[in-house]
Amino acid sequence: MDRLKEAASRIRPLDENAMAKAWAHLDRLTKPPGSLGRLEQLAAALAGMAGSFPLPDKIGRKAIVVMAGDHGVCEEGVSAFPQEVTPQMVLNFLAGGAAVNVLARQAGADVICVDMGMKTDITHEKLMVAKVKHGTDNMARGPAMSREEAVQSVEAGIAVAEQLAEAGYGVLATGEMGIGNTTPSAAMLAVFAGTDAEVTVGRGTGVDDAGLARKREAVRRAIAVNEPDASDPIGVLAKVGGLEIAGLAGLAIGAAACGVPLVVDGFISTVAAIAACRIVPGVKPYLIASHLSDERGHKLALDVLELAPMLHLSMRLGEGTGAALTFPLIDAAKAITEQMATFESAGVSRA
Amino acid sequence: MDRLKEAASRIRPLDENAMAKAWAHLDRLTKPPGSLGRLEQLAAALAGMAGSFPLPDKIGRKAIVVMAGDHGVCEEGVSAFPQEVTPQMVLNFLAGGAAVNVLARQAGADVICVDMGMKTDITHEKLMVAKVKHGTDNMARGPAMSREEAVQSVEAGIAVAEQLAEAGYGVLATGEMGIGNTTPSAAMLAVFAGTDAEVTVGRGTGVDDAGLARKREAVRRAIAVNEPDASDPIGVLAKVGGLEIAGLAGLAIGAAACGVPLVVDGFISTVAAIAACRIVPGVKPYLIASHLSDERGHKLALDVLELAPMLHLSMRLGEGTGAALTFPLIDAAKAITEQMATFESAGVSRA
Repeated sequence: MDRLKEAASRIRPLDENAMAKAWAHLDRLTKPPGSLGRLEQLAAALAGMAGSFPLPDKIGRKAIVVMAGDHGVCEEGVSAFPQEVTPQMVLNFLAGGAAVNVLARQAGADVICVDMGMKTDITHEKLMVAKVKHGTDNMARGPAMSREEAVQSVEAGIAVAEQLAEAGYGVLATGEMGIGNTTPSAAMLAVFAGTDAEVTVGRGTGVDDAGLARKREAVRRAIAVNEPDASDPIGVLAKVGGLEIAGLAGLAIGAAACGVPLVVDGFISTVAAIAACRIVPGVKPYLIASHLSDERGHKLALDVLELAPMLHLSMRLGEGTGAALTFPLIDAAKAITEQMATFESAGVSRA
Repeated sequence: MDRLKEAASRIRPLDENAMAKAWAHLDRLTKPPGSLGRLEQLAAALAGMAGSFPLPDKIGRKAIVVMAGDHGVCEEGVSAFPQEVTPQMVLNFLAGGAAVNVLARQAGADVICVDMGMKTDITHEKLMVAKVKHGTDNMARGPAMSREEAVQSVEAGIAVAEQLAEAGYGVLATGEMGIGNTTPSAAMLAVFAGTDAEVTVGRGTGVDDAGLARKREAVRRAIAVNEPDASDPIGVLAKVGGLEIAGLAGLAIGAAACGVPLVVDGFISTVAAIAACRIVPGVKPYLIASHLSDERGHKLALDVLELAPMLHLSMRLGEGTGAALTFPLIDAAKAITEQMATFESAGVSRA
């Protein structure tokens, strides 16, 4: 827990001074005050996270961290895809052929793959290995992992964030791959939001009605068997979570500790972000919501975090694809602060 | 009317064959079918508009057409900004310092400025001049322009689209500048949607409560005095429209006639698109909605067109800023079709 406590202790609130400087500048630009909406709020928030305005150039250096893990609950028939797809897709990420690679490339961002707990071991020079366990145990029959393994996963995520911040990345984003991982995410959300599986379980990669019923049942059984307590977020991660989900929670904590904004992708990533904020509430101002996914529980998860998504694209792929599409909006927010004329410089009359 | 009739006669429905080819390809890529949501729909629609798949390279060449005009109804005190701001902002666009320039640059797109009817004449090598009239007349006291002037404005917009398509642009977008232009847009929307000014009039660039009341009153008087008929869209443009609004309606018709997608910006642009679709219904499949603006009537205007915006950024600036932010999504849709691995090529198991 030392690494987690140390990271938590480094998280500062957003820098009010830098934000005030950003707003003062934004209000001088040739547009009605506030008329660029979320873009202006984003620019100010980025200043607050970086603790400086003008915004630092490192905001241009972005990485999507795709964490992979397997899920024992797949035994319950909760996914449309076989579990072998987890390592197959990780190899696809490493080869640059998946959707997240294409979208990251478009945005000039890097994709960093981390094995947090795949059943299969892969050796690849580009793969970061922080494997805590070869897949979780079946949460419908007992805890997904031990409390120690949950802490270890969170701390591995913190270490990844610190390493990437050290390497000069100025924006991080979450992504994930793990066949079955909408199921533990739905269980965690049900616990954190105090609601039933009915509301949080969706079709994931596309299960049919029978699969959906099995998923709901697995989530209900996991909660009944493990009795997770919402006020103990590490316990929730251990009992009904996942290795890559705990890793992403750690990534959020680590990013906030380094003053680096974290773009939150879809359903699984948002649930991981909730866990991060329950562990360390100071994480929240460092989160940037990306898209509203079509996965059933995502809207609720965003509401729990009081985050509003910027993109409404009816996507439901995960991997970090929604986060990648948000990067150009971050670049746009920065460019606005750097390139727009002021009322004075352009000789435009004010209201 | 000859140019309008000729353009209308050239508009084809989307090419079903090209769309089917796009979908067949999309379904082979390493993702659950349809899981990239609007991005996949966009890719297929682009194929339908271009009449070919793979998508043509010219989709990478984009321009935002910012049409400018003045509004006689400003006499009624409907805007927070003085009318001199119209030419001042056009000079700002031409100098590259406005928000739309910054966002277009980020997206690798050009900004084309067209004087459709500013009160002031500006001479600038980069300004396209298609001026029909030095500002509209005050619609609260009579028609904004004659029927002939409305047709002339629409046809000027068609000519601009044809000229840009000829120059090799593969995607066009709407933008506008015209102090006071949310007022005629609100009047047109009230007529087309068969509703009251209460629903369609918003704060524009930021009028106070008294200004908002004057705007509503001006819209109601304009409709009472001119009795526009929703089934006569050219008449609506003439009686309660604007020169740049009619120009944008023409731009949409011209883009569709050339098989070029048109990205529709905010409130004013969306109302212009409604007019275009009422004049020539075949325009609609060529429209791509961009963002949901904070301007009061925009959601209704999008609903009238049955278009769903992709970006929710609470912007209310116009100029084409929301359209510019949509360009990276178009590039992303194209890149997905070109760069993603298939299940076969990546050796990934299917569901």
